[in-house]
Amino acid sequence: MSEIEDLLREDLRGQTAYGAPQLDVPVQLNTNENAFAIPDDVAAVIEEYISREIRGLNRYPDRDALALREDLAAYLGHGLTPSQVWAANGSNEILQQLLQAFGGPGRTVLGFMPSYSMHPLLARGTGTNFVDALRDADYTLSPGHVGWAIEAHDPDLVFLVSPNNPTGTALDPAVVDAAYEASRGIVVVDEAYAEFARDASSTALGRLEGRPRLVVTRTMSKAFAFAGARVGYLAADAELIEKLLLVRLPYHLSSLTQAAARGALACAPQLQAEVDELKHQRDRIVKNLRAKGLPVADSDANFVLVGGLVDAAAVWKAVLDQGVLVRDVGLPGRLRITAGTEEETTALLDAFEIVMKQEPSLFEESK
Amino acid sequence: MSEIEDLLREDLRGQTAYGAPQLDVPVQLNTNENAFAIPDDVAAVIEEYISREIRGLNRYPDRDALALREDLAAYLGHGLTPSQVWAANGSNEILQQLLQAFGGPGRTVLGFMPSYSMHPLLARGTGTNFVDALRDADYTLSPGHVGWAIEAHDPDLVFLVSPNNPTGTALDPAVVDAAYEASRGIVVVDEAYAEFARDASSTALGRLEGRPRLVVTRTMSKAFAFAGARVGYLAADAELIEKLLLVRLPYHLSSLTQAAARGALACAPQLQAEVDELKHQRDRIVKNLRAKGLPVADSDANFVLVGGLVDAAAVWKAVLDQGVLVRDVGLPGRLRITAGTEEETTALLDAFEIVMKQEPSLFEESK
Repeated sequence: MSEIEDLLREDLRGQTAYGAPQLDVPVQLNTNENAFAIPDDVAAVIEEYISREIRGLNRYPDRDALALREDLAAYLGHGLTPSQVWAANGSNEILQQLLQAFGGPGRTVLGFMPSYSMHPLLARGTGTNFVDALRDADYTLSPGHVGWAIEAHDPDLVFLVSPNNPTGTALDPAVVDAAYEASRGIVVVDEAYAEFARDASSTALGRLEGRPRLVVTRTMSKAFAFAGARVGYLAADAELIEKLLLVRLPYHLSSLTQAAARGALACAPQLQAEVDELKHQRDRIVKNLRAKGLPVADSDANFVLVGGLVDAAAVWKAVLDQGVLVRDVGLPGRLRITAGTEEETTALLDAFEIVMKQEPSLFEESK
Repeated sequence: MSEIEDLLREDLRGQTAYGAPQLDVPVQLNTNENAFAIPDDVAAVIEEYISREIRGLNRYPDRDALALREDLAAYLGHGLTPSQVWAANGSNEILQQLLQAFGGPGRTVLGFMPSYSMHPLLARGTGTNFVDALRDADYTLSPGHVGWAIEAHDPDLVFLVSPNNPTGTALDPAVVDAAYEASRGIVVVDEAYAEFARDASSTALGRLEGRPRLVVTRTMSKAFAFAGARVGYLAADAELIEKLLLVRLPYHLSSLTQAAARGALACAPQLQAEVDELKHQRDRIVKNLRAKGLPVADSDANFVLVGGLVDAAAVWKAVLDQGVLVRDVGLPGRLRITAGTEEETTALLDAFEIVMKQEPSLFEESK
């Protein structure tokens, strides 16, 4: 063991860093990015917002990001005020702040895996004990299971994900209610993909009123095609947000990030048009793969989880050989596929078509 | 106690958030910002770098910020390679990552206060025990004191600050050597203000070779007039940096931040000219206040610490009444003053002149 490895925190030793493999292939459908580049007219607006900030970068940013929080509150609706909204560098930083404030050493966060793979890593990074209460065999989550798990583990925080990653399905609102009622702690609903839901009313935003321990996290990475800009945010009780100021790094959100986000929010309608197109392509993947006999979970996100694979790693490789990169999320017999542009989606479906013909033994017999 | 306060981590209860009071006064010399706005020609270059990234923001940023690290290594010199440099959202995030990887629950970081006031807060945020080994009466730090304190407390990390904040004086390199030799852990030299040093050779960068546990942190906030852009970085052993990948949030540094930083680095010579002017104004403050009979520590930063005040809070208020905001850092009889433009510095010196005449009882009798 090297000197540096020896100095590392015990629970980090021998670990490898998070990160999807990035391969240089024509069609990248592996990280749930928005397939559409920022349209020129939107880019021009964002550039204008940013340009206004550059000369003044010698000054610290607005520590509380008030203008941005106002815009985010207006975007979210549901009667939310700026004091009920908070922003950070990606929803990862949002979740980290929640864990720092309400989790930490000696405390427990309850999750239901498979789900967003960063949740256990964020818990580890903040010294919070992550307990995995698992899911039903088909990866769904029932109010009964959630209530039982909370009673059994008495967590300080509960992480729900809706639509769930990597399955893609939105939670039944009854699950959120069951979690809140069973829990004495913070209940976080991670809604990174909410804008892609088939039923817009599935969001938990409407449940915040009167539930001071409920938190809904969001990101601009997906629906706003803003993964490169790193803007995550949350909606919650104003008092809860005040507590996050105790652990947030001062001036955590740069003037450039605040300006860029405001520019994108000003163009929400244009960007929403592309969300609609991605939902269309997602539904096309679901329909097409089901027609091929493969089980696919209902998707409310910009990706789908396909099953029925005898050897997921081999299918991943065979599809890659066709020039299409999807994600092996480590679930037996399943792969996660991001919806792309029409052309990318066609390439993906063609690749599956070819692989199923060439190597039928990699797929379970269709029923 | 409210329901939310009750759920907060025990050691955060009753705390208030970090933050210098921001008052709307004509001359703001309280947060050690670079007084000069980004010059128009530099702003144009930064804008060009940023513009190239906007359309592609739908994709995640380069997770490892390789191009930026290359530019930072070239800027730092001392034969450093990109693998020996790491960047994050401000040096606060850099320090937080170091604490997450090498500190944490059950571990100790040793500091010598008064120093950068975020160090204890970052320790608290990561569950690391912060031990304050104090300084000599004049706030200097000797190799003997540092060696003794490390032997006494056996810390996992040691935080040194050079030039120190709020005193402004650079550390004797012998102190860094003494800390490294006495310690078994990570030794961090926080050099946020290094570019303002009277003697450029006082940096610890030249001591990295052969010292795998030594880390030098820097920021672009001060010398690059980039506080609003949030770019901190460090130089250290490549293996140590690899370990930070275990705790860094994936894609922590946005494409916009990476591009903006590269644009500013391309303009380092132009920005250095303003550093020279700020050093001139800083020296002017030191000379002038000393001539007024006030004790002022030697400064290698863009600020000075003035003493000899009977009531620092009253002087702060009286100077504020003259339209100049300085910083009461909580040290008895002392105030911290950021060097400004020539006009701002003149306003500061005039304010002191007036206050000393109007309220001589607020100042110790000059010798």
